[in-house]
Amino acid sequence: MIQAAVLGYGTVGSGVVEVIYDNKEVIKERVGDDIEVKYILDLRDFPGDKYESKVVHDFNVILEDPEVSIVCETMGGTKPAYDFTKSALLKGKSVCTSNKELVAAHGPELLKIAKENNCSYLFEASVGGGIPIIRPMNTALAPENIQKIKGILNGTTNYILTKMAKEGASFEEVLKEAQDKGYAERNPEADVEGHDAGRKIAILTSLMTGKTVSFDDVYTEGITKITTKDFEYAKAMNRSIKLLAVSERANDGISVMVSPCMIGAEHALSGVNDVFNAVYVTGNMVGDLMFYGKGAGKLATASAVVSDVMECAKTLGSNVAFVWNDEKLTLKDLATCTRKFFVRVAAADKEKALACFKNVEEIKVYDDEFAFVSEEIKEADFANYKKEIGNVISAIRVED
Amino acid sequence: MIQAAVLGYGTVGSGVVEVIYDNKEVIKERVGDDIEVKYILDLRDFPGDKYESKVVHDFNVILEDPEVSIVCETMGGTKPAYDFTKSALLKGKSVCTSNKELVAAHGPELLKIAKENNCSYLFEASVGGGIPIIRPMNTALAPENIQKIKGILNGTTNYILTKMAKEGASFEEVLKEAQDKGYAERNPEADVEGHDAGRKIAILTSLMTGKTVSFDDVYTEGITKITTKDFEYAKAMNRSIKLLAVSERANDGISVMVSPCMIGAEHALSGVNDVFNAVYVTGNMVGDLMFYGKGAGKLATASAVVSDVMECAKTLGSNVAFVWNDEKLTLKDLATCTRKFFVRVAAADKEKALACFKNVEEIKVYDDEFAFVSEEIKEADFANYKKEIGNVISAIRVED
Repeated sequence: MIQAAVLGYGTVGSGVVEVIYDNKEVIKERVGDDIEVKYILDLRDFPGDKYESKVVHDFNVILEDPEVSIVCETMGGTKPAYDFTKSALLKGKSVCTSNKELVAAHGPELLKIAKENNCSYLFEASVGGGIPIIRPMNTALAPENIQKIKGILNGTTNYILTKMAKEGASFEEVLKEAQDKGYAERNPEADVEGHDAGRKIAILTSLMTGKTVSFDDVYTEGITKITTKDFEYAKAMNRSIKLLAVSERANDGISVMVSPCMIGAEHALSGVNDVFNAVYVTGNMVGDLMFYGKGAGKLATASAVVSDVMECAKTLGSNVAFVWNDEKLTLKDLATCTRKFFVRVAAADKEKALACFKNVEEIKVYDDEFAFVSEEIKEADFANYKKEIGNVISAIRVED
Repeated sequence: MIQAAVLGYGTVGSGVVEVIYDNKEVIKERVGDDIEVKYILDLRDFPGDKYESKVVHDFNVILEDPEVSIVCETMGGTKPAYDFTKSALLKGKSVCTSNKELVAAHGPELLKIAKENNCSYLFEASVGGGIPIIRPMNTALAPENIQKIKGILNGTTNYILTKMAKEGASFEEVLKEAQDKGYAERNPEADVEGHDAGRKIAILTSLMTGKTVSFDDVYTEGITKITTKDFEYAKAMNRSIKLLAVSERANDGISVMVSPCMIGAEHALSGVNDVFNAVYVTGNMVGDLMFYGKGAGKLATASAVVSDVMECAKTLGSNVAFVWNDEKLTLKDLATCTRKFFVRVAAADKEKALACFKNVEEIKVYDDEFAFVSEEIKEADFANYKKEIGNVISAIRVED
């Protein structure tokens, strides 16, 4: 029998216990052994809970129990998750986590400690919830020079954008509704400003390159300025507006950004709606792949953690290796990247706009506006043109 | 240095050599060692080929060389692939294959031999070309009781159906064009009659259940009877017509079929076009996942083989385990399955049709026809109704 412990009995942690016990038989068949949850660490008690007898309040009980070989860290945050993870790994206990914050901040260090102690640090659930993407990056995509990753990596914002597109509602209205339903946090900044997606694309780009991408270096732009009128234009162009996390390899380096983007209806990402997430990866050999599923939610995320637990169970005493060292990757300056932009200005500013852009495709929806898709230009040039025009109503990157 | 051999220097085999050498650096970094192709087995010589010096004509050269630890079987067919694979595994050499025919026919036996000889039999490329689906079934989806698999598993038919939908061309016209372009075989039966997809869904269902699904038990219906008028109706209903391979778990067993199906535009599979393939899997915990990519093609398929080679290289001397035994899975009789059907009859037969079906949603496109989507009924009842009506122009399963 293989004994595990779960740190944090919140949404994901309780989901992990549920998946392990509800699918006990199939898990046993596939691992070749029973997996038991010996302890659940939480500050709270859970009187009446089916598993209340497993609850402990002192992490040392878990750390000092040699029977526990796998620890699920589903606490979130870096404190005390970092210390707990590190001490577990130093004792040779494998750690499986859903904690993107910790992985983004200390991934390479924890992977190194795991390796040195013949155990594993696995983090499938940290990006894309239930979508398998971390393991595919480390296995299926291992033969590839990855050229580009485009991801819809945040469920809250995708829910909001889908609702805005389908119902013509404003950002504020939909956000409020999402908060009332519990789909969005009371303080929604991490989601709607793109920081959550930024952490996730930083992790994916680190795996793509083997070096460390610092989240602070990732350009992030949120969805708070997107309006219902923008969606009217998107519809007229047969495009969607999605919050994309994009990582792209060019001859002169790798650029990473999180930004709302217009994306053509023909693109597989354009049909990813509601709380679904997807990661679209382009390899130099395999071409385009997409991984699609629920980017959040109790059981989907827990299932990803349990898939890691099963891998640890099958490889006890050895290390599942990742190529991700702590050398910092210097990102390409976004200002030097080129792309098309969708731009709206007042009808009166049409000549000013045409003085900047050489080759525009006009999109007619509102008579009092001049709206267009630009030619491919440098981000830096676009920023200058924006200043010259002075009063740009809206500008959205185009990623077809 | 890890030495591999490639059996069969055709499309996929030459792709494997290309991926290994063109991405040599990144492969070395991720495996932690160089991978070299020591031999290429083929009946032919390849004068002038970059790797002609590696070509051998006698399999025993490979078999008896203790330096070769990994064999890529990219020959196809069961003879002599079966004998070659078996003898390599018996010598403790891992085998990575793209050969769905062999996997479908002898998977469990070869997996057992691999296990007994501390090596691996890996077959990522056998289903879905470059799409990672075999490994996810064995890892990410390991904690799941899989409820349903719906796949677009054949590139040729998806190319044909996409062309028919977009251009209003007939099956015969598009098939001929696909043959001229080399996208379809001169003898297209295995593709257009659904046999290729049938082998693939048999493999996936075996992995889903751990037992063996015999391809001969899989109901297969091809796309040869689909007409341009069917597509007119599909368009009117905002549905696509796709050749789906479907495996579904119910209380009374697992049903498997390959059949053209109408699928709603909102479904993620509906936007899978051209030579792209996708596998949509529903787990009892993770919910819906989709894996999307190129289902065929030289480098995509080769990349999948090389991902297996890298896994073997990282686990030399040990076995990557699969739960797939040779106990035969008795499939649920398709006649007892229920679903909706899209049906077209002559306008004159409207009353006859309405005498059979209780609750139809009429679709008006052609005045001389009565077309509708039925209520959910048993396949057996539908077969009877079809006989009663006598002259059904077209009947297509609905899988929304």
